[in-house]
Amino acid sequence: MTDLDIAKEIELKHISSIAKKLGLDANSIEMYGKYKAKLQHSVIDLNKVKQSNLILVTAISPTPAGEGKTTMSIGLSEGLNQLGKQTTVVLREPSLGPVFGIKGGATGGGYSQVLPMEDINLHFTGDFSAIEKAHNLLAAIIDNNIQSKTNSLGIDARTVTWKRVMDMNDRSLRHVVVGLGGTTSGVPRETGFDITAASEIMAILCLANDLEDLKKRLGNIFIGYTFDKTPVYAKDLKVEGAMAALLKDAIKPNLVQTIEGNPAIIHGGPFANIAQGTNSVIATRMGMSLSDYTVTEAGFGADLGAEKFLDIKCQSAGLSPKAVVLTTTIRALKYHGGADLKKLTVENIDALEKGLPNLEKHIENIKLFGIEPVIAINRFITDADAEIEIIKAYAKKNNVRVALAEVWAKGGKGALDLAQQVIEIVESSDSEFTPLYNWDMDVKSKIEAVATKIYGAKYIDYSAKAKRNLKTIESLGLDNLPICVAKTQKSLSDNAKLLGRPRDFTITVREIEIAAGAGFLIPITGDMMRMPGLPAHPASENISIDNDGNISGLF
Amino acid sequence: MTDLDIAKEIELKHISSIAKKLGLDANSIEMYGKYKAKLQHSVIDLNKVKQSNLILVTAISPTPAGEGKTTMSIGLSEGLNQLGKQTTVVLREPSLGPVFGIKGGATGGGYSQVLPMEDINLHFTGDFSAIEKAHNLLAAIIDNNIQSKTNSLGIDARTVTWKRVMDMNDRSLRHVVVGLGGTTSGVPRETGFDITAASEIMAILCLANDLEDLKKRLGNIFIGYTFDKTPVYAKDLKVEGAMAALLKDAIKPNLVQTIEGNPAIIHGGPFANIAQGTNSVIATRMGMSLSDYTVTEAGFGADLGAEKFLDIKCQSAGLSPKAVVLTTTIRALKYHGGADLKKLTVENIDALEKGLPNLEKHIENIKLFGIEPVIAINRFITDADAEIEIIKAYAKKNNVRVALAEVWAKGGKGALDLAQQVIEIVESSDSEFTPLYNWDMDVKSKIEAVATKIYGAKYIDYSAKAKRNLKTIESLGLDNLPICVAKTQKSLSDNAKLLGRPRDFTITVREIEIAAGAGFLIPITGDMMRMPGLPAHPASENISIDNDGNISGLF
Repeated sequence: MTDLDIAKEIELKHISSIAKKLGLDANSIEMYGKYKAKLQHSVIDLNKVKQSNLILVTAISPTPAGEGKTTMSIGLSEGLNQLGKQTTVVLREPSLGPVFGIKGGATGGGYSQVLPMEDINLHFTGDFSAIEKAHNLLAAIIDNNIQSKTNSLGIDARTVTWKRVMDMNDRSLRHVVVGLGGTTSGVPRETGFDITAASEIMAILCLANDLEDLKKRLGNIFIGYTFDKTPVYAKDLKVEGAMAALLKDAIKPNLVQTIEGNPAIIHGGPFANIAQGTNSVIATRMGMSLSDYTVTEAGFGADLGAEKFLDIKCQSAGLSPKAVVLTTTIRALKYHGGADLKKLTVENIDALEKGLPNLEKHIENIKLFGIEPVIAINRFITDADAEIEIIKAYAKKNNVRVALAEVWAKGGKGALDLAQQVIEIVESSDSEFTPLYNWDMDVKSKIEAVATKIYGAKYIDYSAKAKRNLKTIESLGLDNLPICVAKTQKSLSDNAKLLGRPRDFTITVREIEIAAGAGFLIPITGDMMRMPGLPAHPASENISIDNDGNISGLF
Repeated sequence: MTDLDIAKEIELKHISSIAKKLGLDANSIEMYGKYKAKLQHSVIDLNKVKQSNLILVTAISPTPAGEGKTTMSIGLSEGLNQLGKQTTVVLREPSLGPVFGIKGGATGGGYSQVLPMEDINLHFTGDFSAIEKAHNLLAAIIDNNIQSKTNSLGIDARTVTWKRVMDMNDRSLRHVVVGLGGTTSGVPRETGFDITAASEIMAILCLANDLEDLKKRLGNIFIGYTFDKTPVYAKDLKVEGAMAALLKDAIKPNLVQTIEGNPAIIHGGPFANIAQGTNSVIATRMGMSLSDYTVTEAGFGADLGAEKFLDIKCQSAGLSPKAVVLTTTIRALKYHGGADLKKLTVENIDALEKGLPNLEKHIENIKLFGIEPVIAINRFITDADAEIEIIKAYAKKNNVRVALAEVWAKGGKGALDLAQQVIEIVESSDSEFTPLYNWDMDVKSKIEAVATKIYGAKYIDYSAKAKRNLKTIESLGLDNLPICVAKTQKSLSDNAKLLGRPRDFTITVREIEIAAGAGFLIPITGDMMRMPGLPAHPASENISIDNDGNISGLF
């Protein structure tokens, strides 16, 4: 059975009855059909946020297929609800681009899914499209200002760093020349498109407290310089109001349901390899306002999503997670131990043992933040019992909590042990969250802290461009912003081929982008791209819909 | 008071009570918040469609500000409802791009508006975004196929006619080069972006009968040739299923309300100067299934929207309008008579009389289709009584129905005379709709029919490119498709400066685009662009939103 087959079997509850579980009246939500709703800002109660328990789900360095962080988050939330803890899972929105590529959707899997999966994976309530429009409005306004004779800021087209975005895996748009076709069609210049999830507007939406804060951050977006070297911000183009108006609904989190009929809030959807990778502050606060336990996820491995979640989002929003769940798979550890990507379903104790150092490093990293981790083994049907025992033995030897989680096959029932251990951590209150670095350290020191302590790098190399960027950042007075490193998720290093726990490597900072509105700096390492491509046989070839609206081929 | 001020004064009814007026149960609609809903395909009843009365609202050649076709359609619908005729107005969706440009929104004006105007003008229920994504998915799949070594159709990149789209006035995207940046980032080629309303997918959505028909039309999109000169269609790339899945909600028309609490169905939003310019067949059929009278609009002047509505949509869907309302303004007639664009509010009998031939030609054109027109004078507060009398006298002399319609100031009450005359035309049953040309005529004859009979051209000039296009069309066996001319709306000719009723002019066909999926050919005349630009001071400078979500500056 595919995920879509399982999803179709479930009889969905009306979204008003899910809202009721959270103590919300049907009139206080905005329904989008029968199974989706938008939540109003008034749901947030900062006193309740302080009392609620935030659980972060992250993962070891993943294989290209992903290790089931979302599935684990949903399963854990079901398990906690089964144990009588009122729990909401708060997730990111799937990006549309990868749905047609290799990865597929992002709504969990098996019996741990959020529903309706077809809707959530395709457009959902339009948040990504709104972000894309707000982003591209600014781009159009910039080029219009460059073209204009009577309303010109004197922007030097060669300095414009603001690109366009599209929620599509479209490698041909990475590097483009726009403004061709003569005097009536703009000024020719080099630029490009990123995928929408990587937009600074997405980060702004995810970090904003409310509409007023959103508008202020939008105005602070840095876009380039005038010919006389004055920095230009979005507010100089008087466009932040229109951008905020475009985001009037996108800023509201979305309520859906899990397979077991529990509430799920889905909002914001950045990738953690190229952006901050966690859902919105508003959504997390809503989950915490409405429940005793809130389970959330941070993208890719703990070196990316968890680090950014803790250093950027938690510091920015004053949040302190009580426990961190480290999603671990047998197949990924075997991959880190040298097993062939195509043979990960074959029992291979040797490779598994050789892969353990990747797990070890992620555990060390979580402890660096003062939080107790629990290893959640995301069971696949091909995992051998002997393989599972090796991880359990490793955990016992190193005095780390571990739970076998069969969330794909069994939903919440498969997560009861994990849920119990999470409750124990929360109730023992041993964890005390400490961020890795202070925002007011200088930029190089912040990069060094993350690269050496989290990634395990020995040296950091700055390209000539990155060095110029550092000077720009200093001249703009933005060196007190936190850093949001763009790095491959496939390795702890910036080289996708260095698996396991690489040591003595060098991190190369190719350039440093400025996200002055979001409020962070983006050191781009290795050959990271912010616009993915499609495979030779894209998943779109298998997707279809019949005349009654039934979709097939989504996964 | 601005339109937005008036709109905000209205206490909206819950959309379920609007649905109830149409005999629809609250469970049969999909709510998008409290004031918007999607309608299910099962609403269509083809027997009721046959019995319902379809009224088309069009206009004389407009000034750049537009002459209030949408406002007139809404006001007429209110008027018919006041006279006891159960009426639904069926409109196009506003395009987002112009909202930030000069034109503003497209939800009517004054006391003849559809609501909630902020939502309808900004994203609405996401239909445009879905169309944009389906369009750009095909583009990404084409470039991916060109890039691919293992799954290649051998597409010759130089022959690809499929561009990308964005719902933004962004002139810098008209002509671009994509695929730069080396071997990993695609194959460099020239292409461009059109505005989303001009997408062939928009036309397909507007002409499709249902999802199955939609999918078939999507598969028939022609995109270019292989190196060995084989034509390539979207179905060769196996992408029509995924495109149709992306349109699963967009294909459903949207229900909203007028200021007087009557039903309005809004769906599909092409421009009539660069596309077929009428709402969807599905929406029109729904309006007719649910009401005795259905009022709909066709974009810009009658030479564009009405001609395409009658020759393409009515022939394709088997519809026969009973009456045509010709929206006429004093200011536009003065403009056609030579008055300065900035002095149209000043009484000017001489210019008005000189402008009458534009009205005369549009009346002749409507009669060519065998339908009785009624001139609706869209009253502006600056119109002098003496000016209005001139049009009335003209109508009397020429035996044409005329009504003064004060829909902006008075809503339905201002349209009672117009509504009464429409009822008289319908009940006298004198009109018998005959299309201008048969689809199976050859392409040049079809172009000639429209250019000489409707526009009043004497000669037709084909560029070398257009002549090559004609050969291509013949070789693809597509010469039996109807034509959808792209032409300026500012003049009956293809030269925006020839106002009034130009004669003895030449129409230049620059190229002919193939919309094999939509099922029409697009002769592009004069210097028509399919991607607008922004003015020096874009409307976005005035738009904002406060922390409670109240939008300002939209018009």
